[in-house]
Amino acid sequence: MTRTVYVNGQYLPENEATVSIFDRGFLFADGVYEVTSVIGGKLLDFDGHAVRLERSLNELEMAHPVTKDELLEIHRQLVERNEITDGLVYLQITRGAADRDFAYPKDAEPTIVLFTQNKPGLAQSPVADKGMKVISIEDQRWGRRDIKTVQLLYPSMGKMAAKAQGADDAWMVEDGFVTEGTSNNAYIIKDNVLITRHLGNEILHGITRKAVLEFARVAQITVEERSFTMEEAKAADEAFITSATTFVMPVVQIDDTPIGSGQPGPLTKRLREIYLEESIKAAI
Amino acid sequence: MTRTVYVNGQYLPENEATVSIFDRGFLFADGVYEVTSVIGGKLLDFDGHAVRLERSLNELEMAHPVTKDELLEIHRQLVERNEITDGLVYLQITRGAADRDFAYPKDAEPTIVLFTQNKPGLAQSPVADKGMKVISIEDQRWGRRDIKTVQLLYPSMGKMAAKAQGADDAWMVEDGFVTEGTSNNAYIIKDNVLITRHLGNEILHGITRKAVLEFARVAQITVEERSFTMEEAKAADEAFITSATTFVMPVVQIDDTPIGSGQPGPLTKRLREIYLEESIKAAI
Repeated sequence: MTRTVYVNGQYLPENEATVSIFDRGFLFADGVYEVTSVIGGKLLDFDGHAVRLERSLNELEMAHPVTKDELLEIHRQLVERNEITDGLVYLQITRGAADRDFAYPKDAEPTIVLFTQNKPGLAQSPVADKGMKVISIEDQRWGRRDIKTVQLLYPSMGKMAAKAQGADDAWMVEDGFVTEGTSNNAYIIKDNVLITRHLGNEILHGITRKAVLEFARVAQITVEERSFTMEEAKAADEAFITSATTFVMPVVQIDDTPIGSGQPGPLTKRLREIYLEESIKAAI
Repeated sequence: MTRTVYVNGQYLPENEATVSIFDRGFLFADGVYEVTSVIGGKLLDFDGHAVRLERSLNELEMAHPVTKDELLEIHRQLVERNEITDGLVYLQITRGAADRDFAYPKDAEPTIVLFTQNKPGLAQSPVADKGMKVISIEDQRWGRRDIKTVQLLYPSMGKMAAKAQGADDAWMVEDGFVTEGTSNNAYIIKDNVLITRHLGNEILHGITRKAVLEFARVAQITVEERSFTMEEAKAADEAFITSATTFVMPVVQIDDTPIGSGQPGPLTKRLREIYLEESIKAAI
């Protein structure tokens, strides 16, 4: 089946979906994105993604090409047209096409692109049962990771470095402290306290992070939002990541060190269950 | 006149020149580029750009879609078809189109795009006579600036910040030392000594930088390749930048501080003259 995708107001077969070579997304990585999960044909935390998208656009002084309602309608159309039960909707907005100049163009129309990915059984990942292995790498990304831009080459390089070492992902370290995973937020649990880096320009303000921290507090789990070192992580009882498409995913090994028992931890499992249950319930 | 551009083996009118929305240049900024100046219809330092392109591709484990000879032929075709006397040729290679995944695709064909920009009188810029004003900003780019990737959002933001303050460009500062300009290398001259940051991952290994340092040494100017602070820069006798399209361009003010007399300095002018004379002579 050829996917139907959305480009600047049109629904197109994926092999006809193009952007100008002068698009600033292509020439300058001058664009932002969001990824929304679909479970049972419904969108998880659509509002959260729409709000963050708006923030990213504002931070970069980029125009908003569609309203939130229009965005929701496009998401739903793509889910329906591509018969997505479980999967995701990817959305990217760029500053648009203009002759190449570092300065922002005055009159470019923003480019908006959406496409789906089909991921049957997304919420029943076998990785959730056995846990992930991560490696540690230096965080060499730009300084404004709170803006969800398409400057994703370093995370790609990190993912490849992890694969080369037989691992699933990489946690990044800056000035001695863990920032986050290549496309996810990082957490450790020690003595029943959940620790994850505080918000700032250094990490993405994860939509799933926000929800999981709220669910943790409701479940009376103590939460500390603060920096932690790789040594502290390796000595933790449990570790996990969160992202819009992996939800809560256990980490059982960092570099050569097993975390806790080397198996997904009980609090991690519980948070995954709560997150999935609650967000599927609230899906639209 | 509609430009003729080059995309993956085809010469096309610019308004028909597109890439897939799945191109990793668009989705991940997973691409590299070069810009070569054209003066009098000839290419300046084509070899230098071809060598650096190869290095960028190798650093990112990307395929080389064309040989150096093929690349030269495409450059020449574009210069001819677009009747460029003075201007530039922009070249971008990306890892190609594949369904979105942070991991590099195994079988994607690299994307190669080239286009020209017409810049009549490129070597007679009025800015060279009056000099540029730059502002200082924090360097928030990723850590591998020696690889010439299209992750150019921060340099764009820097250029916009400069414009907002009535300046022409920004010099970036990291850990107390100047790295470079947003799309150029930075230099100061104090007591007849030319100072510019040493090579490393922190700056682009400028083709023009290399040539200018060689010409400076031939002209018996003492060269120090080392870090310098913004304070040192503001107390300098002269300052300038180099890039493939601005050649040697005087900087006469940094933030609110005039440099030296506030006019383009004599050594800067001389280096510009030598660089232009020698590189136009060697152009192909």
